[in-house]
Amino acid sequence: MNEIRQIKGGVCAAAGFTAGATGCGIKTGEVTRDDLAIVFSEFPAAAAATFTTNKVKAAPVRVSADHLRSGRVRAVVLNSGNANACTGQHGLDDARAMAADTAAHLGLKPEQVLVCSTGRIGVPLPVARIRKGLLGIRLARAGGTAAARAIMTSDTVAKEIAFDIRTEDGAFRIGGMAKGAGMIDPNMATMLCVITTDAVVPRAALRQALRESVEDSFNRITIDGDMSTNDTVILLANAGSGVAPAPGVFRSALDGVTRALARRIVEDGEGVSRFVEVEIHRAATKADARRAAEAIANSTLVKCAWAGGDPNWGRILDAVGYSGAKMKESAIAIFYDALPVATGGVAAATPVKKLRQIAARKAFRVTVDLQVGSASHGVWTTDLTEEYVRLNLGE
Amino acid sequence: MNEIRQIKGGVCAAAGFTAGATGCGIKTGEVTRDDLAIVFSEFPAAAAATFTTNKVKAAPVRVSADHLRSGRVRAVVLNSGNANACTGQHGLDDARAMAADTAAHLGLKPEQVLVCSTGRIGVPLPVARIRKGLLGIRLARAGGTAAARAIMTSDTVAKEIAFDIRTEDGAFRIGGMAKGAGMIDPNMATMLCVITTDAVVPRAALRQALRESVEDSFNRITIDGDMSTNDTVILLANAGSGVAPAPGVFRSALDGVTRALARRIVEDGEGVSRFVEVEIHRAATKADARRAAEAIANSTLVKCAWAGGDPNWGRILDAVGYSGAKMKESAIAIFYDALPVATGGVAAATPVKKLRQIAARKAFRVTVDLQVGSASHGVWTTDLTEEYVRLNLGE
Repeated sequence: MNEIRQIKGGVCAAAGFTAGATGCGIKTGEVTRDDLAIVFSEFPAAAAATFTTNKVKAAPVRVSADHLRSGRVRAVVLNSGNANACTGQHGLDDARAMAADTAAHLGLKPEQVLVCSTGRIGVPLPVARIRKGLLGIRLARAGGTAAARAIMTSDTVAKEIAFDIRTEDGAFRIGGMAKGAGMIDPNMATMLCVITTDAVVPRAALRQALRESVEDSFNRITIDGDMSTNDTVILLANAGSGVAPAPGVFRSALDGVTRALARRIVEDGEGVSRFVEVEIHRAATKADARRAAEAIANSTLVKCAWAGGDPNWGRILDAVGYSGAKMKESAIAIFYDALPVATGGVAAATPVKKLRQIAARKAFRVTVDLQVGSASHGVWTTDLTEEYVRLNLGE
Repeated sequence: MNEIRQIKGGVCAAAGFTAGATGCGIKTGEVTRDDLAIVFSEFPAAAAATFTTNKVKAAPVRVSADHLRSGRVRAVVLNSGNANACTGQHGLDDARAMAADTAAHLGLKPEQVLVCSTGRIGVPLPVARIRKGLLGIRLARAGGTAAARAIMTSDTVAKEIAFDIRTEDGAFRIGGMAKGAGMIDPNMATMLCVITTDAVVPRAALRQALRESVEDSFNRITIDGDMSTNDTVILLANAGSGVAPAPGVFRSALDGVTRALARRIVEDGEGVSRFVEVEIHRAATKADARRAAEAIANSTLVKCAWAGGDPNWGRILDAVGYSGAKMKESAIAIFYDALPVATGGVAAATPVKKLRQIAARKAFRVTVDLQVGSASHGVWTTDLTEEYVRLNLGE
């Protein structure tokens, strides 16, 4: 039997990983907080990554995808305060310089370093400041939290998680950090995530596990329906434990990390006051279930109603109606947690007061039973508050 | 030569049309404003209509579509305060009763009456109150403005327009009223519109003209990306002028009405502080141009930036990137009015101060030049403000 235990350490929980951070004033020139971090592996690690599907890809995304092809990875360098996106050829040169400077600092080859940036779009990356900052980074086993803090933008809390998994063949560890907040849509958004493990996992298996796990976690979250230029999830496996877990065991450990971090990203979304699970049941197809779930989760009117604690089912039904999913109005049932708010396409008998109590909670589940098939899909989302608008008025 | 002159009278500007309104406390039971209106034609009118494409259709939409099939129309009855949507079979019975009661009051057959409702979803229509209210409606040539006021919901101003068109063959008139505000998306949204003309137009030509004119006006406006269950545009042509204009002349007069009303709906959107024309040029296909325009117009992040007067082009480029439209980042140019904010996918040399002056105006144009083809599309949209969220928190 396997035993899974949550542990501390985040991105440094697994054997052979260290991390560190420093402040170099990337956004304004003034050093007010840490904004540059490194995650380092003592031995070459098998690496997998998923990147934004936006056709506008930030320079670090292009450079990391390029370096990933070259084989084994030793380090990831990450900065907040500047996304190095929409910066043209100059931005690509800057991202390559950031990798090369990190490699020089750590005694590696540039292609052994992956690069992540998050922050403002369209502003040149201050490479000189970053080069100088790199010299001040001290890598340590205890550096995971500092790294997780350094990549925060409008996040209000650092996001880390780690697990120790004991199998019959021995123990391995997996841990990760992420940043999220606004612009979160299925297919990742303004999020960065680095996951490290000391398990022995062949590169092909690592890639498949990450692709599937991201599909069931980060690609199910949506805050504002926008999709960023910088989204990156990196998974490094350095074999430091010497333990090669069965694929199912590794996958479930990885899912534990990706789901915990995805949920924390949603809960910490900009100006969020509610965490809502939207579940579609009995859709005609999986694609229909996803369309309906995302239409609800991205409807500004539905999200405003949630912000007001209003269990407004008309707006939910309306969103299902324009989602394109096959539906029959008179067959639809909608629930807030276990209580029906609409059945047969009309108001249910549940007292409004009880429904309002649920919709006023910090977390609840909305289930839509389409009754036209057997496919399901769920997404995690939030309300839309005045605070969200205030945070995104621009700078 | 034709001469087109804007005139007063709205939905009663054309010969043979009258209107009237009354208050019957549809929303709360208390009479605080007019909420029921009739538009009446002294002679049977050829009729055309376009309805919401949402699969969830309100009862009045179903009943009007049904009555439209029966031939010539004499009246439209409209109420605010209750959408009679998501109300099941009972709602259909109520919408039919509303048409029948109106027909009885005016000495018509029920199928000569079209029905429109707008307001809360999922609440039974108070038919008894409406039946009583109908008796109090006095129809008059001067009743257009009262009718336009009675159908307002969160609209802050009544929306009417009318034109007198002099041709070589004689003069005809066309006028209309609309209500809009929130939940406005391409494909119409929570909007009602009634247009009347005394031109002689055969039914088939009337239908085609309306379909095309709606495509170039109401289907180009988007406020919050939601699409309502009640959207209806009705066009009545009663031949009262005896003048049969050339198809092109009629179409351009109709376009004058639909575009003016569409623009006023957007300008009066919930919590709107900016009116923005988004134009896509040189897209690979018309569908791509539309996708890119709508992705920008529906991006919460872009709209929040506009609310803050921030000419943020990174968010615009990001939206184009995930729209699905064919693009090449290094070829894209973006303009605020005539000033480039980005060229070749990177920041343009235009001083930020000048761009900010434009983005802080009440109305401006954002143009994206994709440089990959020759197709264009434009939409009209707004910013997203804290006021919008406040207005939609639920009741």
